[in-house]
Parts: sequence; C-alpha cells; structure tokens
Amino acid sequence: MTRIKKILLDESEMPRQWYNLTPDLLSPLNPPLGPGGKPITPEMLAPVFPMNLIEQEVSQDRWIDIPEEIRNILVQWRPSPLVRAYELEEALGTPAKIYYKNESVSPAGSHKPNTAIAQAWYNKQFGIKRLTTETGAGQWGTALSYAGALLGLEVKVFMVRVSFDQKPFRKLMMQTWGGKCIASPSTETQAGRNILEKYPDTPGSLGIAISEAIEAAVTDPTGQTRYSLGSVLNHVMLHQTIIGLEAKKQLAKVGIKKPDVVIGCCGGGSNFAGLAFPFIYDKVNGADIQVIGAEPFSCPTLTKAPFVYDHGDVAEMTPLLPMYSLGHNFIPAPIHAGGLRYHGMAPLVSAALKDGLMEAQAIHQSECFEAGLLFSKTEGIIPAPETTHAIASAIREAKKAKEEGKEKVILFNFSGHGLMDLVGYDKYMTGQLSDYEYPESEIASNLAKLKGYPLPK
Amino acid sequence: MTRIKKILLDESEMPRQWYNLTPDLLSPLNPPLGPGGKPITPEMLAPVFPMNLIEQEVSQDRWIDIPEEIRNILVQWRPSPLVRAYELEEALGTPAKIYYKNESVSPAGSHKPNTAIAQAWYNKQFGIKRLTTETGAGQWGTALSYAGALLGLEVKVFMVRVSFDQKPFRKLMMQTWGGKCIASPSTETQAGRNILEKYPDTPGSLGIAISEAIEAAVTDPTGQTRYSLGSVLNHVMLHQTIIGLEAKKQLAKVGIKKPDVVIGCCGGGSNFAGLAFPFIYDKVNGADIQVIGAEPFSCPTLTKAPFVYDHGDVAEMTPLLPMYSLGHNFIPAPIHAGGLRYHGMAPLVSAALKDGLMEAQAIHQSECFEAGLLFSKTEGIIPAPETTHAIASAIREAKKAKEEGKEKVILFNFSGHGLMDLVGYDKYMTGQLSDYEYPESEIASNLAKLKGYPLPK
Repeated sequence: MTRIKKILLDESEMPRQWYNLTPDLLSPLNPPLGPGGKPITPEMLAPVFPMNLIEQEVSQDRWIDIPEEIRNILVQWRPSPLVRAYELEEALGTPAKIYYKNESVSPAGSHKPNTAIAQAWYNKQFGIKRLTTETGAGQWGTALSYAGALLGLEVKVFMVRVSFDQKPFRKLMMQTWGGKCIASPSTETQAGRNILEKYPDTPGSLGIAISEAIEAAVTDPTGQTRYSLGSVLNHVMLHQTIIGLEAKKQLAKVGIKKPDVVIGCCGGGSNFAGLAFPFIYDKVNGADIQVIGAEPFSCPTLTKAPFVYDHGDVAEMTPLLPMYSLGHNFIPAPIHAGGLRYHGMAPLVSAALKDGLMEAQAIHQSECFEAGLLFSKTEGIIPAPETTHAIASAIREAKKAKEEGKEKVILFNFSGHGLMDLVGYDKYMTGQLSDYEYPESEIASNLAKLKGYPLPK
Repeated sequence: MTRIKKILLDESEMPRQWYNLTPDLLSPLNPPLGPGGKPITPEMLAPVFPMNLIEQEVSQDRWIDIPEEIRNILVQWRPSPLVRAYELEEALGTPAKIYYKNESVSPAGSHKPNTAIAQAWYNKQFGIKRLTTETGAGQWGTALSYAGALLGLEVKVFMVRVSFDQKPFRKLMMQTWGGKCIASPSTETQAGRNILEKYPDTPGSLGIAISEAIEAAVTDPTGQTRYSLGSVLNHVMLHQTIIGLEAKKQLAKVGIKKPDVVIGCCGGGSNFAGLAFPFIYDKVNGADIQVIGAEPFSCPTLTKAPFVYDHGDVAEMTPLLPMYSLGHNFIPAPIHAGGLRYHGMAPLVSAALKDGLMEAQAIHQSECFEAGLLFSKTEGIIPAPETTHAIASAIREAKKAKEEGKEKVILFNFSGHGLMDLVGYDKYMTGQLSDYEYPESEIASNLAKLKGYPLPK
C-alpha cells in the first residue's frame, strides 16, 4: 500500500447523528442548581436559550439526529481530514503512529463552528433573530459571526476590552462576517454601565462580558434575542462529537480498530469532548483506550482542582454547575492559550474524569510552544497556542512509545491554527515567555470562598 | 444524486506530471535577452538558479514528471478541494454553476507553496543549502519559509521595509517556520548599503529587495546559495499547473466535460496560469472555453499595456522579458491586493494573451471587496484581496449567465485566504477606500522610457 497522508471522508459519509455521553456515564450527571440550591428547570432557561437547545441540554438520548440543513452547511469544510503525522513521527524517531484530526480547516480556523452553526440554526428554527455572546481571545466570537452570516441572524459579541484593543484582527474577522463586536464593559447594558461608573479604565473580564451578553439577550423587548455559549454546556459538547465520530470512520479506513491514546486540549472542554467522547463510548463498552485531557500548568483545573458545584462565571450569573473548578474567582496567568484560561470544566468532561474514563496532564507553555514550532516545521501548519497543548501531550506519549518500543496509535485533536496568534510564538522565540505555577495555598484560599455551596454526588 | 459541496480527489489521484504550455503556444516564445540584446543562455543563469530548474525554465517538453519526494510533501494539503459555490449561486440567483478551486488550504494560505516546495526540493537536489528571495506583501516569503522548514534549507527573505513595518504578522509567520526576514534595504548587501547611504529613510521597494536577494545569492563564496522567485518565470507557471490538472479531474467526477469560463486573478501570473493553462491546452485542441485574467483597474497590465521587452524589476537587474508591461518604472497605486501590484506579466501568460488564448478584465478594488464580502457571507471563507478580483469577475459572468438564461459552468481559482489582510476589508467597510485609474497619458509617458529596447516578435 502506498503512503497516505490525509484520510478523507466523502460528504455522504459524514455522521448523521451526534453522540450524547450523558446516558453512558457511570454515575448520573448532577443537575445544574439555581437559587436556593434547587435544580434548574428547562423553563428557567427559556429566556436565555431556545427550547430546542434546552431539550438537547437535558437529553438522555444517546444519539441525536443532525438536521439535514445543518449538514448542508457543515460540508463547507467537513468532514475534516484525519492526517497521519509522518513528518513529526520521523523527527521524533518514534515507532508510534500519530494521527491528528485537522479542525483548523473551518472558515473560522477552529472547531468552534461545529456548534456555532448548529446553535444558530436551532435558534433560527425557534424564531430567534439575534444572538448575543461574549468572547475572550476571539475564537468563539468569530465562529458565531460566521454562523450568523450563513444563517441570516444578527450577532452581537461582547469582547473583553483588553483583547478588543490588543487583537484588532479578531474584531475585523467578526465584522467581515457582519458580526457586531463591542468592547466590554460597554454602555449598552446596565451591567456594563455599573462597572464603567465604578472603574472607567477597567480592562474588562470574561465574567463581565458574560453578564452583558446575557442581559442584552434577556432584556430585548421583542423576545427575539437569545444568548449563545461556545463551550461548557452539554449541547455544545454534543455538537462537537462529530469530530470523534468522523475520526473513528477514518481510522477504520486504514484498518485501525481503535487508537491506543486519544488526546485533546482542555479549556472549557469542547474540542476535547468532541474528539474524545465517541472513544469514551467504546471505552465504556470495554475498549482499552487511554484518554488524555491536556491543560495548562498555569490553569490546572483537571489536575489540581476539586469536583464541586461552582458558577461558570466570575459574576455569579450562571447556575451552579457540577465540575472541577479552581473557584470562579480564580484569575489564570496571562498565558497565550487564551482559550484554555478557564477556572472550570464542562460538567460532562468533569464527570468523565470523576468516573475514571479519562486522565489529565498539565503542561507548561514553554514546552507547548516548543512542540508547536516542531509541528510547524514538520507537518507545516502553525498551531493555535491552545492546540500546542495537545501536540505537546502527543509528543510525550510518542516519546514514551519510543522508550517502550511500542507501535502505539496516538490520535489528537488539532483544534485550530495559530495565524491570528503569532505574537505568542514571537515571545517564545525571543525568550520573553515565563512558565507559571500557582502555589497550592493560593488555589486553596480561592476554593475556600466556595464554602457553603452544595456539593455534587 | 444528493448535493455535493466539495469534490475531493484521493492522494493517489494527484497528478504525476506538470503541464508546460510552451510547446502549445501558437507562436514560439520569445527568449529572454541579456546585455546587448542577446538571448540569455542557461549558463548565464547558473549563478542565480540551480541547473535543474534552469532546464525546466527552457524546456519544450509538454509534460514534466513531478518527483515522488515532492508529491509526498504536496499531500500535506493537496489535492485541494474543488468546491461548488451553492450559497453564492443562490445569493446571485444565477443559473450558472460556479466552482472554485480552494488553494487557501495550504499551510501558508495560498497557492504559493506549490512552487515553493518544488523549488526548494530542486535546489536541495542540486546541493544548495540556502535560498534568498524578496517579498512585498509577504505571501511568497511565508511560502518559501515553509518550504525551507520542510526541506531543511535556510531561507533569507528581503521584505520591503514599508511592509516589514506594517505587516509584522507576516514576518512572524516566516520566523515561526525558521525563515530569516530582513527589512530591505538592509546593510547586508552592497545594493542595500548604497541605497541607505543616499536615502536613509526610504520605505524600500520590490525592485530594491530583488537586487538585494540576487546579490546575497550570487556573492556567497561557498556557492551554495541560490535565488528563488515566486512568479513570472516559466518554471513557476509549470509548478502551478497542478491546480488546473486537478480541477479537470474533479470536474470530470461530477460529469462536467469542460467549464465554459475559467477565471484567475493576475499579478505576476502564477495562480492564473496554474488553473488556466491546462484548460488552454484543451482550447488549443478545439474546446470552446472562455479564459479570463482578472486584474486591478489600477494596474492594468493585460488591458492597457503593450507587448514589449522589459525588465522584470525596477532596478533593471533581470534580463529583458517578452511581456505585456506598463514599464518597469510604473508605480501602482497602493491598493490592498499587494500581490497584483506588478508592472509586467509572466511571459507565458503574455504569450497566451497575444495568441488570443485568453482575455482580460480590469476591475476596481471597491467592486472586488464587495465581492469578497458577499463570498465571505455565503461560502464562508474570507478571501485574500488578490483573490477577490477572481471572485468579482466570476460574479460578473454569473450575472451575465442570468441575463442570458444560460446554465454556464464557471470555474475560478480561490488563490488564498485573507486572514492576514483584514485591514483592507476594514477600510472598505468604513468607506476609506478609493478606486484608482491612471490617465492614459501617464502610462504612455512611462512606456516612452522603453524607447530603444528591442521588440518581441
């Protein structure tokens, strides 16, 4: 057989259903809790999300159909290629076979459009005309703007002011797709005005931006605006599982029954879940697969945080979610993988870790950028700083395979390209980057503030 | 048959030969001329290019094998998808079927790596260790840096100072791949030092950068450095024909024997030639195909310039080339499609126009950016400013097809994405862009400076 670099699927082979991990968890998912510690009901979420997405959020169904109209848009870039990293393997001298799922091929450059398109479509079906959201580094805001353009929905993105100022190109991407990008805090919401009155020069935060985006959605008097979130929630994980479902078909095409190791980087959890959950399904059903979530050493949610109930945001606007959390007041160091700077973790990913269905690795950013440079010079594509965490983890496993002399199959998610994030590489190459490690005591004192919160089972 | 968005080829279906238009021209190609108006011999080029590429430059062979080692690298992104622009067609309400060849999927984001990889490989085969080149907007410098990384060659890029200062991300892309990017004029060459002495604050020019890159190559005492050019030359056109050869196979897969219209944007000519030449081959053999080169109104080489002998560069370092030229002193307006700001045109493209094998359209940049925005909001991908010229031309033809009620097949080259060039979109959207049109008199007075040059047949 001749060497094949990219394993492709025809559009007709694209999965027709998403996979929901919920019914396959070893212990039932703890519900989100509202005021007074009572479980949130679907009706309570109705002002924020359309009911069709709320149904997906709470669904116990293992398989959920992907509407044909959504599939017709996803084919603008899907199925994405599964690529054999021959050149990286050669540079490492490893007997391991390394494969990566290339999600950077989407118009927005990452996996985010998988759920942005789906969410925009369900909102439109429900009669919604406008979406609001927040964005930190900018990946999610661009993905939702792209989805809004395709589906004819207005999109308003509250972008953390410091990023808004430092990353003008992200804003321009959103605007090119017709998205409206506003620096947060803004004068458009009460939450924003309150903050600006107190702190006129604030750089903003994701917590504030979330507050503004939710307020802008729920206060629209026409009732035709909803809020959209790019990670953490169950329905977001669901929409991303198309990644892993495709990867399974692609591995089968080259005669691989199962990978030995599956790796994704973890911020809120969505690209990791997208690749890993379909393989965790196999694991639950007896397959021997090592599943690794790779996170920054400076934001060690999976490796150092407890499993608790906590808010998803700094402003305590969201329900309490059952998850590993460093505490919602935790402020991660300003590493360049902005998408991984999150204090919590998706409840479904948290449940998988708690159930022992996955493990976690924390990696310093210098090791990650070194991995990103090696990848760029071998496989060609410059990875997003977030993605370099998965690459660094894959390289660790490939080196281990070399030591053990084992021909392991390692699969990781190449979640996005780094063309909009080259400043991080520059700082790494010019020796301006530091690695961060939080003292245990600081994490502990931050977590102490959760005292009195209910505990998940 | 269900709707198929992207027509893919397996890697095993990737072409194994490039197509050389030279033997199929209706009149023989005029040779490049050196000092005294005498034809340049291969030996005279030897200090600048390796002999294996010089052989390709002067080859009369119609088909030239693509070495397997080059094919093994090209598959990092090739075959590229041929995409049916359903969403764009719908927005236009046209009966035309619009297809685009998506060359933006390469790691560098454009078609340039098709020849960068080939040139780097041939240089390496010839024992060369280092490549020098110049870059204006930055696309070519990034592509050659990527190729250098993959093949283990040092790459030094002389980047026009004004771009070097205005486009720091292009420089960072090159550095991430290990390329050395230097602002031109520099103190590294005699040519650069001379200019700096006279004009210490010069913004630089492509002409100066070419002079420096050639000097840096030919003065290396080890003899292991050569110069590399990203467009204009015959061997560059050759390497790009893989684009059109793939497109033919892909159209055949959906039962299309030939497109009615083939379109590419024209700067130096390489992406146009890459798509169009294999179809011009069919045209020479009797097929009824309209082939259109789309150029900026502000740099109307194909539509307003004469067919002459002229230098390829401002500094008069290159041989005289037989081409349509606005005169090598022509300074195009600062439009955002930097890659199309070139006074001349590849000799092979010029010959095709002179032989009546293609036609040309000049389009203002405002029409192009409008086309680029419509494309972004329908097909999803944000196009490079250069590429928007091909899109605008395709939209013109699709509207014509609507008026005529004809179900034409329109094929264009999507030569690159615009993620590194969003400033142009911003200026267009905020009303800061002007369209430029040169008075005929200015073009004429510029061309008058070519008096006394030999004339091509």
